[in-house]
Amino acid sequence: MLNEMAYDIVEEMIDREDELGIKVFEKKATIIDCGIEAEGSLEAGKLFSEVCLGGLGRVEILPQDFGDFSLLSVAVDVKKPAIACLASQKAGWQIKTKDFFAMGSGPARALAKKPKETFEKLGYEEESDVAVIALETSKYPSRDAVKYIADACDVDTDDLYILVAKTSSIVGSVQISARVVETALFKLDLLGYDTKRIVHAYGTAPIAPILGDDAKMMGVTNDMIIYGSRVYLFGDIEVDINRVPSTSSPNYGKPFLEIFKEANYDFYKINPEIFAPAEVYYNNIKNGKMYKAGYVNKDILKKVFL
Amino acid sequence: MLNEMAYDIVEEMIDREDELGIKVFEKKATIIDCGIEAEGSLEAGKLFSEVCLGGLGRVEILPQDFGDFSLLSVAVDVKKPAIACLASQKAGWQIKTKDFFAMGSGPARALAKKPKETFEKLGYEEESDVAVIALETSKYPSRDAVKYIADACDVDTDDLYILVAKTSSIVGSVQISARVVETALFKLDLLGYDTKRIVHAYGTAPIAPILGDDAKMMGVTNDMIIYGSRVYLFGDIEVDINRVPSTSSPNYGKPFLEIFKEANYDFYKINPEIFAPAEVYYNNIKNGKMYKAGYVNKDILKKVFL
Amino acid sequence: MLNEMAYDIVEEMIDREDELGIKVFEKKATIIDCGIEAEGSLEAGKLFSEVCLGGLGRVEILPQDFGDFSLLSVAVDVKKPAIACLASQKAGWQIKTKDFFAMGSGPARALAKKPKETFEKLGYEEESDVAVIALETSKYPSRDAVKYIADACDVDTDDLYILVAKTSSIVGSVQISARVVETALFKLDLLGYDTKRIVHAYGTAPIAPILGDDAKMMGVTNDMIIYGSRVYLFGDIEVDINRVPSTSSPNYGKPFLEIFKEANYDFYKINPEIFAPAEVYYNNIKNGKMYKAGYVNKDILKKVFL
Repeated sequence: MLNEMAYDIVEEMIDREDELGIKVFEKKATIIDCGIEAEGSLEAGKLFSEVCLGGLGRVEILPQDFGDFSLLSVAVDVKKPAIACLASQKAGWQIKTKDFFAMGSGPARALAKKPKETFEKLGYEEESDVAVIALETSKYPSRDAVKYIADACDVDTDDLYILVAKTSSIVGSVQISARVVETALFKLDLLGYDTKRIVHAYGTAPIAPILGDDAKMMGVTNDMIIYGSRVYLFGDIEVDINRVPSTSSPNYGKPFLEIFKEANYDFYKINPEIFAPAEVYYNNIKNGKMYKAGYVNKDILKKVFL
Repeated sequence: MLNEMAYDIVEEMIDREDELGIKVFEKKATIIDCGIEAEGSLEAGKLFSEVCLGGLGRVEILPQDFGDFSLLSVAVDVKKPAIACLASQKAGWQIKTKDFFAMGSGPARALAKKPKETFEKLGYEEESDVAVIALETSKYPSRDAVKYIADACDVDTDDLYILVAKTSSIVGSVQISARVVETALFKLDLLGYDTKRIVHAYGTAPIAPILGDDAKMMGVTNDMIIYGSRVYLFGDIEVDINRVPSTSSPNYGKPFLEIFKEANYDFYKINPEIFAPAEVYYNNIKNGKMYKAGYVNKDILKKVFL
Repeated sequence: MLNEMAYDIVEEMIDREDELGIKVFEKKATIIDCGIEAEGSLEAGKLFSEVCLGGLGRVEILPQDFGDFSLLSVAVDVKKPAIACLASQKAGWQIKTKDFFAMGSGPARALAKKPKETFEKLGYEEESDVAVIALETSKYPSRDAVKYIADACDVDTDDLYILVAKTSSIVGSVQISARVVETALFKLDLLGYDTKRIVHAYGTAPIAPILGDDAKMMGVTNDMIIYGSRVYLFGDIEVDINRVPSTSSPNYGKPFLEIFKEANYDFYKINPEIFAPAEVYYNNIKNGKMYKAGYVNKDILKKVFL
């Protein structure tokens, strides 16, 4: 289901190639360049993000007012949040060949079952003749990488569609902010909650401007989620809401690049509690309670942007 | 026209059944369960609301910022507001058989002319081979109820489409907030104005979280309109704008459930002036004047939500 | 490309004539009346604006909060901003025959190359069998005017589609506010920058209510841009951002009608620096810097509206 719904969006992107500022070409598989050599566009970013969500999310570009400044933002409405975010959108597949490396996200993960534990936990599987994957990379995938992905998904390379964008591109930036609901589910999973019990989800996050190279942008885009995002969740389990937002992390308050530096540039040494939305609303639809925790931090946002 | 435009949306909902979290089945007519046994989704709520408006309104889910908190909201853009809201969206048809009771809204009302006075006042009628109705109910309609509706609309049961959702469901909550423009027209009508002279209308209202059973939700969803909504109207008649918003009611300031209790749980004993948007903008396009009355009451909203 | 993409939208408008409140008829060419005798609608305004942008922009109607009041607004996401805004949306073609006068905007300008300098500067040209033009006028174009336009575009009158709306109509008002990004590009061009280097653009502006006749509305709609709009630009050139917003004009602070009066009602005597958005964000994607200048002036907006 995810791959087919994503493929419908990919077809639309290919039809509107010139208008969207993207470049489509064949390299065994079909490569849809949204932000390496191509300039891309905000709307290409919206569609790229919807592909990552396996067609289960609607992404809109909106302005967001923060008092004395205003930011472009994404708003993401996600159906079947655990499936959309964890079985598809999460960059959970390490694509690694001799000549290429990137983290893969999108519905192809559900065909290759990467990582396996996720799909066992979610109890989700699907079959599809077409596979769609999205790569955050500043290099086109090599022929070996294309073949590796197709084989892992058990599809012909002809039936494989690879969307690519580097971090320091407009599409790269939009698609990271569009992961706002994903980070909430990641955090809930980290805290031991069953994410399948989250039945509706919606989130907003500012879109980072292009403020430097991929390394710099990795920091800035994370700041958008950690300090600028809001998530609205509906579920039927009890959740200790105060542990969900980024404020629960001991590292809260510093730009992400600083946190990264303090961890000697080793992701796995960062306390993972920081990877979470800034402000979280949770509606327990079973007991009829509504909770709020965390808050959007305008001061840090302003420092990052202006 | 209304039934055919609504049917186009219904067809889309049926095609996207699984994705939208709804359940479609036959029980003489086609039942589209959006929130009884089905979980529904925010997007199903959007489409349900657009069906209620006979295809004449566009409903979007948006975040809305209230300073120290933020709420999911609907934004509703309504064409031909009197027809869309009063000849279709209003829950003005009492569906009552031995074994079923619900208030019916949606374009089927225009076929059955329920209530008759409304259609005489609006001078609106239509013919259609297909009928679409929406019911706020926690029970599926009985076979007798289905037959009663089809007969009243003069269509075969095969050509009748019934959307259902209970009040305490996400679709139930969205579709009530999407009645924000309808309440403005209701109030204008109550005050004796000719609603056909309102030529454009737009409104926003927060979406109530699920805060309890249907009875509790009846109160909370009304609070969203009464204390949290904004309506923008354009018309060519003079309107005493200060009488339009909910502030004009002597009951203003109390949660709706309290008002209901004070009326001994009898709707007809409630002063109807409370059923109105919180903040109303009126542009008299004939004399070129713009008016504002009422205001969104963040304190009451916060008390309801958090 | 622009005319064909605009024509797709025109076809949709014709299909939805009654619903959108527009009137379509033949007068040699196809006239789509969105706001002369027709009432129009907010959505017709959205589509009219998207036609003006040659299909390269998405226009949404949104509420915008200004603290103690709130306004209906447009949000405009523009791809290929220089082409969309300057080769199409700008009202840069003086349609003048013995019996008709109006400023023409929309993709037909790219066929007639009006004005020639613009198309030379942009290096843009296109061929199309269909031509689409939008006129801000309170009179239908005469047969001579229709023939003049078709000849200049080198199309049959049968293949010419003319959208019309007067300034003091809802569509007229929406489509002017939707020019928010265009004014930013106009200002950049005025300051000598190469607008083709602006790669992404997004803007918001309040929609003026109908506050009087065409002359009055000319003032009020300009105020929406000058005092109420925000633009977000991404480009790869250095820009002296403080010179871009309307605040850089010596006339800043007065309602546009006053400025016009002081110039003895002669447009060409007005210092053109005032024609610019109120608040401008510029992201230089080459050096990774983000800039902000100007600000939305709530006090003047409030004076205009309420």
